[in-house]
Amino acid sequence: MAKRQGCRTVSFDRPVYVSAHAAIVGQKEGEGPLQGTFDMVSGDTHFGQKTWELAESRMQRIAIETATGKAGLNLSDLDFILAGDLLNQCIGSAMASVSSNIPFIGLYGACSTMAEGLAVGACLVDGGAARRLCAAASSHFCAAERQYRFPLAYGGQRTPTAQWTATAAGAAVLTRDRTPVRITHALFGQMVDLDVTDANNMGAAMAPAAYDTLTHLFEDTGTQPSDYDRILTGDLARVGSALLRDLFGRDGVDLGATYDDCGVLLYDTEQDVHAGGSGCGCSAAVLCGDILDRMERGALHRVIFAGTGALMSPTSVQQGQGIAGICHAVILEGS
Amino acid sequence: MAKRQGCRTVSFDRPVYVSAHAAIVGQKEGEGPLQGTFDMVSGDTHFGQKTWELAESRMQRIAIETATGKAGLNLSDLDFILAGDLLNQCIGSAMASVSSNIPFIGLYGACSTMAEGLAVGACLVDGGAARRLCAAASSHFCAAERQYRFPLAYGGQRTPTAQWTATAAGAAVLTRDRTPVRITHALFGQMVDLDVTDANNMGAAMAPAAYDTLTHLFEDTGTQPSDYDRILTGDLARVGSALLRDLFGRDGVDLGATYDDCGVLLYDTEQDVHAGGSGCGCSAAVLCGDILDRMERGALHRVIFAGTGALMSPTSVQQGQGIAGICHAVILEGS
Repeated sequence: MAKRQGCRTVSFDRPVYVSAHAAIVGQKEGEGPLQGTFDMVSGDTHFGQKTWELAESRMQRIAIETATGKAGLNLSDLDFILAGDLLNQCIGSAMASVSSNIPFIGLYGACSTMAEGLAVGACLVDGGAARRLCAAASSHFCAAERQYRFPLAYGGQRTPTAQWTATAAGAAVLTRDRTPVRITHALFGQMVDLDVTDANNMGAAMAPAAYDTLTHLFEDTGTQPSDYDRILTGDLARVGSALLRDLFGRDGVDLGATYDDCGVLLYDTEQDVHAGGSGCGCSAAVLCGDILDRMERGALHRVIFAGTGALMSPTSVQQGQGIAGICHAVILEGS
Repeated sequence: MAKRQGCRTVSFDRPVYVSAHAAIVGQKEGEGPLQGTFDMVSGDTHFGQKTWELAESRMQRIAIETATGKAGLNLSDLDFILAGDLLNQCIGSAMASVSSNIPFIGLYGACSTMAEGLAVGACLVDGGAARRLCAAASSHFCAAERQYRFPLAYGGQRTPTAQWTATAAGAAVLTRDRTPVRITHALFGQMVDLDVTDANNMGAAMAPAAYDTLTHLFEDTGTQPSDYDRILTGDLARVGSALLRDLFGRDGVDLGATYDDCGVLLYDTEQDVHAGGSGCGCSAAVLCGDILDRMERGALHRVIFAGTGALMSPTSVQQGQGIAGICHAVILEGS
């Protein structure tokens, strides 16, 4: 049984464990600072498929199969797949799992989807609705770029505040079976809209939501930043993560060296990604590669994974609507 | 605690109750066979907003507020809002709840979203993650038509197998507090893709998924169609629901007079909707209006609500991908 703790937080009496995890990325991501932490780096942008949308599906499917395999399970052992992505009608995730014959729960949380999937998934395993499930998320630079912005061949200029949609997918298998890493708490965020209308500055749109979620999480659990080995947002990138530090600074809270952002971690500044990475796959691949690996090795003990999403569409932006941020978080503990 | 029952079904030991529900529709829907069963019929397609997308958001927001009010609650009493719709990036639901200050869990299940929300929501209440929450879904004919098909002013011809996206929203508040109607079981469906590629015949694409889900539900619970007062799919419409009867007929199972489809129920044949209604709001408004009203009055005792969705996007159809159907179901029982 889960318990409500404080105003927002869900705490799991009987912990939910991360059985296994996998991160699959494209070449650019594989050449960044986290090289060597991924299960697969594909030199082929198309992942052997004929369209970028199918490439994204293939990449997410490989992540799900790899994570399930590393957990010593077959796909058919999963009770559910929970997944989402940025493509219209979340078609990347649907096509990834269509032939899996596994019950499918479609989620939409923009770039917060991996955290949303872990949070919902932990509730389902904790509550007995599932024995084991896989949460996954993905994004593909080429598929996102033509859907959200311009055809790639147009060669549009990007603003310094713009983020680079990662070609990446992450997947994690959750169970009740004891493993080194467990999810102890989850917090579902509310939307925060401070009327940012610039779709090329989504870090600014999401930072207030991250602040809201983390503030509640610290308060509800009676903890502070220094109680964690790592506090990870994903993906505020450089602009948004500086704003987040600033927002906490006004409360006299120093996020310190434990704070980092998946959109900052995934690429080197020389990789021409401007403010940093974004896309559902960015935080998914950083968590399901480097971070969970380190937790399993005992190098990180207590981690907040706070996925941030910008709830907007090209249509809503064209119509002048503000971009609402949202941030879902889970607390992970190593043994 | 929830229990797994049989291969697929989740059964709730301590039932989850439907506190209140609301259905909001447009004029065409308000003039159909279910007139008088809705909480509000808007003569204004724009619901007082300047775009159809905002109109959909406004309609969904009214449904959420109305259901919450009927439950004797304020919005701030809700732990979560779970919602989804058909618009790209589920922007209709995001904009509906952006200023609510309630934690938001975005779902994507195409036209199965209301059932997905009730199923996930029941698991969250049952498992202790939430004390009370609201599940909602919506669709708007004008917003959907221009996104999926043609600008309305183009006056495109529709095929006889095409369905009419309902301008409708439904919302239901789930709690642990005893009320006349409870959710006893939930089943999350798998995708079924029999390679239907005609986006104007989504009933045919979804019928095999409804068959798969209902077959598992009957088997897992040891029940048969005659054990229910009403088995409702939403929305297979005329073509898909005839196919579903046919699929069960091959097994020697007669769905009988208890079976009906929300897409058939919402409109009269004279309303020029061809095969019938569709859209996330269609099954949401039929359930959260007429059906739950009848259950509360004791006119219906045991109901299967099986939401069906077609997991496709205009891009996936243009690229020649098959349209996968999905069907999530809940069993509702009256006192």
